[in-house]
Amino acid sequence: MKKIYMDHVATNPLHPEVLDAMMPYLKEEYGNPMSLYESGMKARQAIEDARGLTASLINAQQREIIFMSSGAEANNCALKGIAYALQNKGKHIIVSKIEHHSVLNTARFLEKQDFTVTYLPVDNHGLVDPAAVEKAITDETILVSIIHASPEIGTIQPIQEISKITRSRGIMLHTDAVSSVGNIPVDVQALGVDLMSFSAHQFYGPKGAAAMYIKEGTRVVPLIYGGIQEGGRRAGTENVPAIVGMGKAAELTKRDLQKRIDHVKSLRDSMIESALKMEAITLTGHPEKRLPGHASFVADYIEGEAMLLMLEAKGILSASGSACSSKALKSSPVLISIGIPVHQAQGSVVFTLGEGTTKEDIDYFNETFPAIIKRLREISPLSQGWNGMEDSTCTTQK
Amino acid sequence: MKKIYMDHVATNPLHPEVLDAMMPYLKEEYGNPMSLYESGMKARQAIEDARGLTASLINAQQREIIFMSSGAEANNCALKGIAYALQNKGKHIIVSKIEHHSVLNTARFLEKQDFTVTYLPVDNHGLVDPAAVEKAITDETILVSIIHASPEIGTIQPIQEISKITRSRGIMLHTDAVSSVGNIPVDVQALGVDLMSFSAHQFYGPKGAAAMYIKEGTRVVPLIYGGIQEGGRRAGTENVPAIVGMGKAAELTKRDLQKRIDHVKSLRDSMIESALKMEAITLTGHPEKRLPGHASFVADYIEGEAMLLMLEAKGILSASGSACSSKALKSSPVLISIGIPVHQAQGSVVFTLGEGTTKEDIDYFNETFPAIIKRLREISPLSQGWNGMEDSTCTTQK
Repeated sequence: MKKIYMDHVATNPLHPEVLDAMMPYLKEEYGNPMSLYESGMKARQAIEDARGLTASLINAQQREIIFMSSGAEANNCALKGIAYALQNKGKHIIVSKIEHHSVLNTARFLEKQDFTVTYLPVDNHGLVDPAAVEKAITDETILVSIIHASPEIGTIQPIQEISKITRSRGIMLHTDAVSSVGNIPVDVQALGVDLMSFSAHQFYGPKGAAAMYIKEGTRVVPLIYGGIQEGGRRAGTENVPAIVGMGKAAELTKRDLQKRIDHVKSLRDSMIESALKMEAITLTGHPEKRLPGHASFVADYIEGEAMLLMLEAKGILSASGSACSSKALKSSPVLISIGIPVHQAQGSVVFTLGEGTTKEDIDYFNETFPAIIKRLREISPLSQGWNGMEDSTCTTQK
Repeated sequence: MKKIYMDHVATNPLHPEVLDAMMPYLKEEYGNPMSLYESGMKARQAIEDARGLTASLINAQQREIIFMSSGAEANNCALKGIAYALQNKGKHIIVSKIEHHSVLNTARFLEKQDFTVTYLPVDNHGLVDPAAVEKAITDETILVSIIHASPEIGTIQPIQEISKITRSRGIMLHTDAVSSVGNIPVDVQALGVDLMSFSAHQFYGPKGAAAMYIKEGTRVVPLIYGGIQEGGRRAGTENVPAIVGMGKAAELTKRDLQKRIDHVKSLRDSMIESALKMEAITLTGHPEKRLPGHASFVADYIEGEAMLLMLEAKGILSASGSACSSKALKSSPVLISIGIPVHQAQGSVVFTLGEGTTKEDIDYFNETFPAIIKRLREISPLSQGWNGMEDSTCTTQK
């Protein structure tokens, strides 16, 4: 059976041109970029070229890009790096409740190191209220970190409005843009952020390459100390092939972004329209302010794992939430934060589209998904006593 | 001109079989290992297979291996991870003065967080005295971190003897084995270490993959928080191709290690014998307790950069010290620590051999290196007044 990959927010295949760009550095061009002889300098130049291409994708300067190994590393580095750099100024940090685990768990670590963290609530669409950010700021606040777009519910935050507040108060603003860069236009100047994390495999680049934008003049204590790679800000022998791949992927993304958006958006809209025709299915996240290829739902009376398995049996690959927590099998804190009741959050499913998704795939989905939901409700103990016609707010306690 | 690569301690080409093993994961097998569908589970299985092969190379259990992105990351994680895990027990750490920068600079970071660090001296061969470790231990000591083999001078430390002391005192022992694993047999049980860092590109595996051995039952606070990858101990989407490559490289290394050692050792011995026939050339590091493919020298009256450039002009690629500091152009702290005077440390050069080094390469080296030294001394302002026949301890001050 043909597999229809609808989990592009988890990861993506390498673009063939990206792999082509990487191959020389996986073969003959193996020099260490720190070496002083020619092959080392060629590797060094390849990294700097990739840095320029990566910077260009987000409208940054080349020297404002630091390569890292993953979005999680970048998020850890942003929070700890600013915390340690500015701890003499204050020890208060503000994040939202719907950050990625790499932000939330780093915040919890910092709490153990005597930092104070405010976890901002979000509304039912998952939006952070800029006024709430302003209200949470104290004289001790050194950093605000708000995710740009949620991988679980697709909601895009008003970073620009938040930045007006942080800038006026002289507070650093970091955004985790792992799920947005490559999927929507992201311009660090327009957003007004001081730090931004993003990851290559989100836009057809390789796993193992990510970057942090650090606005010029911003001091960040390194997460990984060692040699003078990345201007002394991130040590470790550079993963040259992956970095070259990230540069190429950034170049292609800059060229193709609008085409990619137009492609997935109309397909995604058709999925949402079709899915919402069913009873007791809710779109999670914001209806408009959301990633263009992102459709996320909760289906009442259904266990999410069963839904994923049955979708897979029908050739549709999807996720129950963020890939990083899919194996944890806990109720998603993001869904709880937007007011989805625990029993409903169990029935969550996320579909994310990409370059390769076709009209035929979506037609097949629009046929198959309702049939799966129907079948699962027939066999589900959660739906006992529910005939599909009752008030859709009924619960298993009924 | 043929290039003779004598900088294997900086990095290595990918073994062709390693690249072959990686290719499927750079192409069709792009699933995220955290995903619950089949392609995710295949990636997950590939990682676990690689973990088993990597563990086997160092005689560890599969679950004692945590994959990371570089040796520097592993060193940072070991020091900070143990420091934060055991800070309630004590805040004193012992390292040697000849650790890699990723250990030394992490130690300095921890000093700023109110930890105390003892920097142990080494003897003229670069050896740490186990008795000095014992003497440095206080009731507050929680961790000893001693490099296994120095990339700059090749000296192999008596980790086993140090471990007897740390084990008897209930103190954690970490070793940075980045330059030893793949070059000599390394057995974590025999060494008696609790944590060990090592890196794939040191043994014909890919850049971007490294590992930390963490003895079962050892609690380490993560360096990178986030999802539940690597058992919650190292978050971030796994770099599947690189991890698969590390596993394959470990498998090949286990199979070929003795052959590799025999090959480089006799070639290296011939280099040292030939080089030491020259005046005012000193072997740095231990004459016997050293990496088998490693020859490091200081040449009086010569500027190291000029030597590297002239070697390169003759097709010989070498380094002045560790790759991570080669561009820093400072006097090597390692050479200063073994008692090499500053002016002499400027003339340092490190040759490291590998699988591809041939007898012909060494014959060429043995002809070329003395000629380069002679030529550089003729033109060097440092050698003014020195005719090559005088007391070899004379200095530029003379």
